Formats: sequence, structure tokens, C-alpha cells
Amino acid sequence: LISNDQMEFDVFWLMNVAGLVAFATVGSLKGIDGDLDLLGVAVLGVTTALGGGTIRDLLVNAVPHSLHSTTDVSVALVGVALAIAGARRVDGLARHPVVLLADAVGLAAFATTGALVAAEAGLSPFGVVALATITAVGGGAIADVLLGNTPFVLKEDFYATCAVLGGVAFWILSTNGFSEDVAAVACAAVVLTLRLVALRRRWRLPTVDGVLVS
Amino acid sequence: LISNDQMEFDVFWLMNVAGLVAFATVGSLKGIDGDLDLLGVAVLGVTTALGGGTIRDLLVNAVPHSLHSTTDVSVALVGVALAIAGARRVDGLARHPVVLLADAVGLAAFATTGALVAAEAGLSPFGVVALATITAVGGGAIADVLLGNTPFVLKEDFYATCAVLGGVAFWILSTNGFSEDVAAVACAAVVLTLRLVALRRRWRLPTVDGVLVS
Amino acid sequence: LISNDQMEFDVFWLMNVAGLVAFATVGSLKGIDGDLDLLGVAVLGVTTALGGGTIRDLLVNAVPHSLHSTTDVSVALVGVALAIAGARRVDGLARHPVVLLADAVGLAAFATTGALVAAEAGLSPFGVVALATITAVGGGAIADVLLGNTPFVLKEDFYATCAVLGGVAFWILSTNGFSEDVAAVACAAVVLTLRLVALRRRWRLPTVDGVLVS
Repeated sequence: LISNDQMEFDVFWLMNVAGLVAFATVGSLKGIDGDLDLLGVAVLGVTTALGGGTIRDLLVNAVPHSLHSTTDVSVALVGVALAIAGARRVDGLARHPVVLLADAVGLAAFATTGALVAAEAGLSPFGVVALATITAVGGGAIADVLLGNTPFVLKEDFYATCAVLGGVAFWILSTNGFSEDVAAVACAAVVLTLRLVALRRRWRLPTVDGVLVS
Repeated sequence: LISNDQMEFDVFWLMNVAGLVAFATVGSLKGIDGDLDLLGVAVLGVTTALGGGTIRDLLVNAVPHSLHSTTDVSVALVGVALAIAGARRVDGLARHPVVLLADAVGLAAFATTGALVAAEAGLSPFGVVALATITAVGGGAIADVLLGNTPFVLKEDFYATCAVLGGVAFWILSTNGFSEDVAAVACAAVVLTLRLVALRRRWRLPTVDGVLVS
Repeated sequence: LISNDQMEFDVFWLMNVAGLVAFATVGSLKGIDGDLDLLGVAVLGVTTALGGGTIRDLLVNAVPHSLHSTTDVSVALVGVALAIAGARRVDGLARHPVVLLADAVGLAAFATTGALVAAEAGLSPFGVVALATITAVGGGAIADVLLGNTPFVLKEDFYATCAVLGGVAFWILSTNGFSEDVAAVACAAVVLTLRLVALRRRWRLPTVDGVLVS
């Protein structure tokens, strides 16, 4: 039993690290495209990686884990370094399959921590879904706002929707007698699967005009 | 006495519901205009409706009420649905008299809860006015920032000013021996009256250039 | 000994006041340039002055000092008044030497309070540097975002970098046996000196393209 728990923890820990690196890389690349200076690029990368978790903790009145640790920011800085090294060498680094995969893994890991923290804090079903989503996409949204753009999660792709549905899965399972461990694994699986399928099939959410026309 | 309290509570509850629906409708319409996908439209509507109260609670170190409840988000989703249904059928829905009235009612209700929460937390006079204003206009401001726009409350109309003056009224009455109930009713009355008169008379605040010229 | 402490306190208090006025002036001038109405200009000025400290307090789960006091906002409103009075009379008021000096002093004072609050809250080294930086530049960043701009600290000048290095100085000294008082004085001195030299020498951080080319 302990070895199962341990493995689950290790997998989750790895997913989290992959997400921190990928999120930081994607955020830094946005900063490079936006002609920010080196500090600005690093701030954007670190914000993308740590922002979602920081808002999550603030919303349940905890001092953000990101400010109590130096590990998370160090991992994020690896992603920043990758972006700076790769920006002019790898064409379209932000859409490179490895980055997209790591980003999807991070989306799943972050949504799951959001749902777990929300359940711990006794939030409502909406609170669980909201915290899963905000944790997963909040960092990228802040980075986009800092660049003066509408957060890409609001207009593009089937991205935040994966986190929403993962949060819903977590809540359905945990209110139907399943343990939080099971609900967490299901949440991560739902987010990761949906995101990968969405990437491959180029799923998009319809717009209001699209709905009304059809 | 109980029936008076009850009636006051019911009126306030109704005002709050009207505000949640109106704010969500106005926010969703902004999202539709900004070509967001359906999730983006819903996020913008819900953020406009729940954002102010969420910041209010964070500023006094409470876990946001919006995350502990499913009622508020459900009411907001009614507003989102109205926006999606009406966007292409009703010309200028965001400036429709019914929406403007409900929005003014919401402005009054939200400013009042902000002032009450601030008084409860023992904030300074500035804190009372700031929380009344942020609660009333914070959700719409976040929505505007998400769309990459300057919050409309900073440039247009006599809107946030109504909430500021409602907060001032609350603070004057409550520091002069009146009960919080009386101060709350006065706050709501000041905000609602000013907003409706401002709409009818097309009041605007002057800009600095305007002041210097005159 | 007491007179030393007292003097240090007085100097720091003066630096803080200078910073509040300068930040409010700079923020209000941005609002005037952005054609905001008078309330918008005041909101931008006050936000620039009080925003960094407010985020700092939220991040360590304290009710923001700015909402418990009326002194800070009153001092900030002096800066707003200066901006309104001077905007059309003094050419390039935002780059006037007196404003730049007061702004640099405020940057030093705010970074130092951020580092002190972080140390008090037992944050990690990254937390100390992050809080020093956010306290110093957070208000201006919010103002820029409200205007739909990328925060100038991310693209221009050697500005936020001074606060980062001040936070690093604070942390190095305080983890090497020096008292928090000494670390605080060093932090303020590092930020102020770097900022003034940067202004005089027109230092800028390189961009990624600049680094890769050189």
C-alpha cells in the first residue's frame, strides 16, 4: 500500500515539475516576443509558473506556498533559461510537441492541486471547479494581462475547459464516496486526456455567433 | 420589529439578485463583443458578477463567500444565459433600460455590502469608502482588464463616483451614532438615486483638461 | 541608542512619505495622459502609491495597512493634487528631477518594507526578494495594467532590478548574522544608489535579442 501511495506521489511530483518548467518556458517566450528586458522575461516566466498556485493559496487565505519555497522558483527558472536559450534557435518553440506535452501535464497537475486545496478548505462545488481552473490557468492569464492581451484561455483552444471538466470530475467522485486520492487521479487523467485529444483534433469551443448560426 | 427587519433583508436580497444577474449580463455581453468562446463569455459574466465581492472578502482576509456558495454563481449564470440569448436579438442590450436599472440596483447593493464588511472589519474611513467602491465596481474592472481595456469606471460616466459617495454617506452616518442598518439603507439609497439621476441627466465627471480650461 | 533608532525611524518615515507623494504624482500623470476623468486620475494615483503595500499585506495574509489608515491615502492625495496642478504647467513633470528623486527614494523605502514584512512572516529567500520587488513596483504595475499597458517595470529602465538587488542584499545580510535594522538600511541604500546611478548613466537591462547578438 505504501509503495502505491509513494508511486502516486512521485508521479504527481514529476507532473508538477514538468508543468512548472513548461509554464515558465511558455511564459518567458511571450515575454521575449513582447520585447521585454531580461528581468521582464524572467518575471513573466516565473509568474506563469507560480501565479496560479499563488492565487489558489490567497483564495483560501493561506500564505502562498510559492513564497515559502525556493524549489518552485528554481524549477521555474530552468524553464526561463530554456526559453532564452531556445527562443531564436528552435522555430515555434512555444508550439513544439515537447513543450505542448509538458504544458498539458502541468495543466493536469495544477488543476488537481487546485481541486485538492478547495476540497480541504471546504469550498462549494463551484469553489472546487473554480479553484481547479484558476490554479491551472491563472498564471498564464496574469502573464497575458501583463502584456496587455486578453488571456488566451478566454479565446483560444479547448484549454481552460479541460481544467473545468477535471474539477467537475473531482467533485462528482469525491461527493459520491470515493477517496480524495481517487478523485485526484481521475481529475488529472480527465484534464490530461482531454487536452491531448483537443490538441490532436484541434478542438475549439464555439463562439456565441457560431452557436446562433448553427 | 421583526417584520421590518425581515422586509429590509428581503429588499436587500432582491437587490443583490438583480445586481448579480445584471452584472453577469453586462459582463457576458462584453465577452461576446470581444469574440470570446462560450467558456470565455461565461467566465467574463461570472467574474463581473462575483469579482467585486471576491476582492472585498480577500481584502479583509476572509475566504471569498463566492467560493463557499453555489447560489451566487447560479444566479450569475442566469445573467450569462440572458446575454447569450439576447445578444443578437435585442439591439444594444447592454444599454437597455431594464439592464441599466438592474445594474444600478446592483451597484447600490454591492456598495452597501462592501461598506458593511469594512465596518465589521474595523477599517478606517478610507477603508470603508474603498471597500464600498471596490465591491461595487471591482468585478467590471477585472472584466475590462481581461479584455485588455481600461476599466470603463475610470473613464466613463458618473458610475464609480456613486459608490464612493454611498460609502461616504455610510461612514458619516455610522460615526454619528446611527445604527449600521440605517447607514446601510442610506448608502444604498444614495448610490441608487445618484446613479439613476446620472443616467437620466447624462452626468459625467470632468477631466483634468476640462477643469483647467473652465 | 534610542536617538539612533529614532533617527533611523524618522529617516525611514520621511522616505516613505516622499515615496507615497512621488508614486501618487507619477500614477496620476499617467491617468491624465490617458484622458481619465478626475476620479479615475485619483484612483490611479492612489493605486500607484498604495497598491504595492496592499499586495504585500495580502500575500502574508494581513488586512492591508492601507485600509486601516487614513494617513497613507491622505499623503497620496497630496501627490494627486500636485499632478493635477502641475500637469499642464510643468513640461514633462513625470521626468522632473525632483519627481525622479522622490520616486527613487520611495522605491528604496517600499522595497525595504517589503523585505521586512517578508522576513517577519518567515518567507523563503525568494519570498523576501519577491515581496521587496512587488511592494516597490506593484502599485505602478497595477496602474499600467488598468491603462491597458504592459507594466513599464517589465520593459524599461533599470528600475525593478534595483528592488530585486535590494531584496538580495537584505537577505544576504540577515542570514549572515546581521540585525534586521542593518539589513534594512543596506537594502534601502542599495536600491537608492542603484536607481540614482541608473538614472544618471541611463542603464538599461538587455533584451534577449541583445544578449544573443552580443
